[in-house]
Amino acid sequence: LTSYNIAIAHLAETVRLEKPLVHCITNYVTVNDCANALLAVGGSPVMADDIAEAEAIASICASLVINIGTLNGRTVESMLKAGKKAASLGRPVILDPVGAGASALRTETALRLISEIPFSVIRGNASEIRTVLNGSGTTRGVDAGESDAKADSEDPGALLETAKELSRRTGAVIVATGKRDIVTNGKMTLVSANGHERMTRITGTGCMLSAITGAYCGAKPSQILHAAAAAVCAMGLAGEIAAAECDAGKTGTGSFRMHLIDALSLMTGGSLLAGMKLDLS
Amino acid sequence: LTSYNIAIAHLAETVRLEKPLVHCITNYVTVNDCANALLAVGGSPVMADDIAEAEAIASICASLVINIGTLNGRTVESMLKAGKKAASLGRPVILDPVGAGASALRTETALRLISEIPFSVIRGNASEIRTVLNGSGTTRGVDAGESDAKADSEDPGALLETAKELSRRTGAVIVATGKRDIVTNGKMTLVSANGHERMTRITGTGCMLSAITGAYCGAKPSQILHAAAAAVCAMGLAGEIAAAECDAGKTGTGSFRMHLIDALSLMTGGSLLAGMKLDLS
Amino acid sequence: LTSYNIAIAHLAETVRLEKPLVHCITNYVTVNDCANALLAVGGSPVMADDIAEAEAIASICASLVINIGTLNGRTVESMLKAGKKAASLGRPVILDPVGAGASALRTETALRLISEIPFSVIRGNASEIRTVLNGSGTTRGVDAGESDAKADSEDPGALLETAKELSRRTGAVIVATGKRDIVTNGKMTLVSANGHERMTRITGTGCMLSAITGAYCGAKPSQILHAAAAAVCAMGLAGEIAAAECDAGKTGTGSFRMHLIDALSLMTGGSLLAGMKLDLS
Repeated sequence: LTSYNIAIAHLAETVRLEKPLVHCITNYVTVNDCANALLAVGGSPVMADDIAEAEAIASICASLVINIGTLNGRTVESMLKAGKKAASLGRPVILDPVGAGASALRTETALRLISEIPFSVIRGNASEIRTVLNGSGTTRGVDAGESDAKADSEDPGALLETAKELSRRTGAVIVATGKRDIVTNGKMTLVSANGHERMTRITGTGCMLSAITGAYCGAKPSQILHAAAAAVCAMGLAGEIAAAECDAGKTGTGSFRMHLIDALSLMTGGSLLAGMKLDLS
Repeated sequence: LTSYNIAIAHLAETVRLEKPLVHCITNYVTVNDCANALLAVGGSPVMADDIAEAEAIASICASLVINIGTLNGRTVESMLKAGKKAASLGRPVILDPVGAGASALRTETALRLISEIPFSVIRGNASEIRTVLNGSGTTRGVDAGESDAKADSEDPGALLETAKELSRRTGAVIVATGKRDIVTNGKMTLVSANGHERMTRITGTGCMLSAITGAYCGAKPSQILHAAAAAVCAMGLAGEIAAAECDAGKTGTGSFRMHLIDALSLMTGGSLLAGMKLDLS
Repeated sequence: LTSYNIAIAHLAETVRLEKPLVHCITNYVTVNDCANALLAVGGSPVMADDIAEAEAIASICASLVINIGTLNGRTVESMLKAGKKAASLGRPVILDPVGAGASALRTETALRLISEIPFSVIRGNASEIRTVLNGSGTTRGVDAGESDAKADSEDPGALLETAKELSRRTGAVIVATGKRDIVTNGKMTLVSANGHERMTRITGTGCMLSAITGAYCGAKPSQILHAAAAAVCAMGLAGEIAAAECDAGKTGTGSFRMHLIDALSLMTGGSLLAGMKLDLS
């Protein structure tokens, strides 16, 4: 056990004590999962996407999570307004550039958000993170593209370099999720081996991770790298626990989704510390 | 057992017989839970928020539930149009002023809806109900604020007075939910001790209660006070049953959500009568 | 066993191999269920409804599913644009005319979509299918109306004639679901007896069927009739399996929903072949 493992596990307790209000402007596909995941880890969700209250809600919250999964012209303006307000108040703002690389609208919106809002964390899969750095990509819908998946299995170091470069350019902690999850601020990098393949067979695990990252960052805005790593480990460990339940019961993806939220809600600092697989890169 | 207990439990059977169509203009966070809760108690949900069909759908339904959880400029106009139409046809209209007090938009929208639509029921937490009466409040996102929670634990009678006053001003039955759930028409007050703390750890229990209140009121528009009390007791009892399942299985909030819908769907007039904890105040 | 049973069961394997991207412009009530159902059968969902990316997302997908469950002015334009683009590229486009017959907006939108987009499959309940053929109807919210239900129990052949006629007029395979599910291209008709009454007690079973029809058609665009029949049998069989789980556990509709997704995710070509109840009419 190292000091960062203990610091990170401690964050799980901090979230339950602080109960941070997390403002989410997010997609309507997984919004219920995001709200329940936030509540499960101890946060308190507020979903509000109208421009007439974007700043007001951002102002009363500990953090803001912007997810472009079902973006439209109306909500993008709210994202910009809420993001600038939250950042101006020193609150962590998290971006999940869902599907960046799958359409010009998504790529351009992600780039515009990054150019106008100083994000604390940007969380995406390999294709999304590459798209955000390079300005274009080949994301397969909302999943990593095959060329990216192939490249990463052949050269696991390439994505890390991409993430570091994006962190240097944006000032944000970058979380690139896949078989291994990378968390980097450009100088220090933590890699988590938590997680399970079953997590790719339901919708929302990426969105839920971004949402709870908002809770961890909101509870500890002075330790964004650790907060992002805590969220990554908590989500991955919950996936492992849920997969074990499904293996035991020979159940499918409907059960997996339920067990995943269960595992998040039952997790303590101690169980996270015991289960996390996190190393310095 | 008193006559009102029996009358209220009887409503649970009436809803299953009548299968009232319930028009919901509601938020996209908990809309699936609301639809499944409505079906579970015997109602039939229709979600429709476009202004071009707001009146048409309201006209074919037994009741209308307006929930401002993710309000926006477009849907507020639909709420007004549908609400006026339903009320003009004598159909019960229920308001859930989600987050009133958390932003000026929510507070002002709730007040505007109340000034233009004669609601049959207004259902909210302590902070929302106070905000609606006083014109401003300190709601913590979508949860009751701490000052309200503290005030209510020190003086349980204060919220009841607020609810009664709001009922007198609006003509609506007021349902103020919290540790105890208050149901009042300003003259007669019923208080339910059903419910469980676990209900606060998932999203949607308040929204689901408002939704099924629509079903109960739609099935018995001549008995709004009893219908609202029936919904409150049914929801609270379902929470208790679901909590017992989770305690037995040592499961978390994902399971709780499932058991809650299960309990609503398995509830009968008899089991509601046996489990309700309802008293005249 | 006949050759079409085997061909249809084989499609369940094909979907898992091909992992077709399915573009959904769908309602916010059941969108999470649709995404999880798509993933459960092996497809990959992309929900995108903004007009600025409607064509771009349609272009990268194997099929498109248009569901008017919570239509509004903004999304109807996206449906038209995406539908025309997908059809021009030879991709199957599926229509679920949710609630056609319940409001003029829904009826007219369904008719407009059909007049402008060459659909591969139109899937609805008896009232919706009749409305789409006749230009008006008496759908009870999003469920089949009572007069239609009565007519169909008295004369099961009438709905089949309606479906055949609609197929001839539109060129689409028509799927009319109810106690028996009819799949017809106007010449050849397959009738499935799979399914369970419990499927009517949760929201989303119709929407999920339409969504997975997109996956089956996307994986085998040359065999739309068989693909639609495969989706119908898979959904109905999953309903039977889920109902058996609920009967065994004495559980309710919350559990049923979970078991339904479980059953879809655990289904193989072999288990579908063993469980399908499909006959030529």
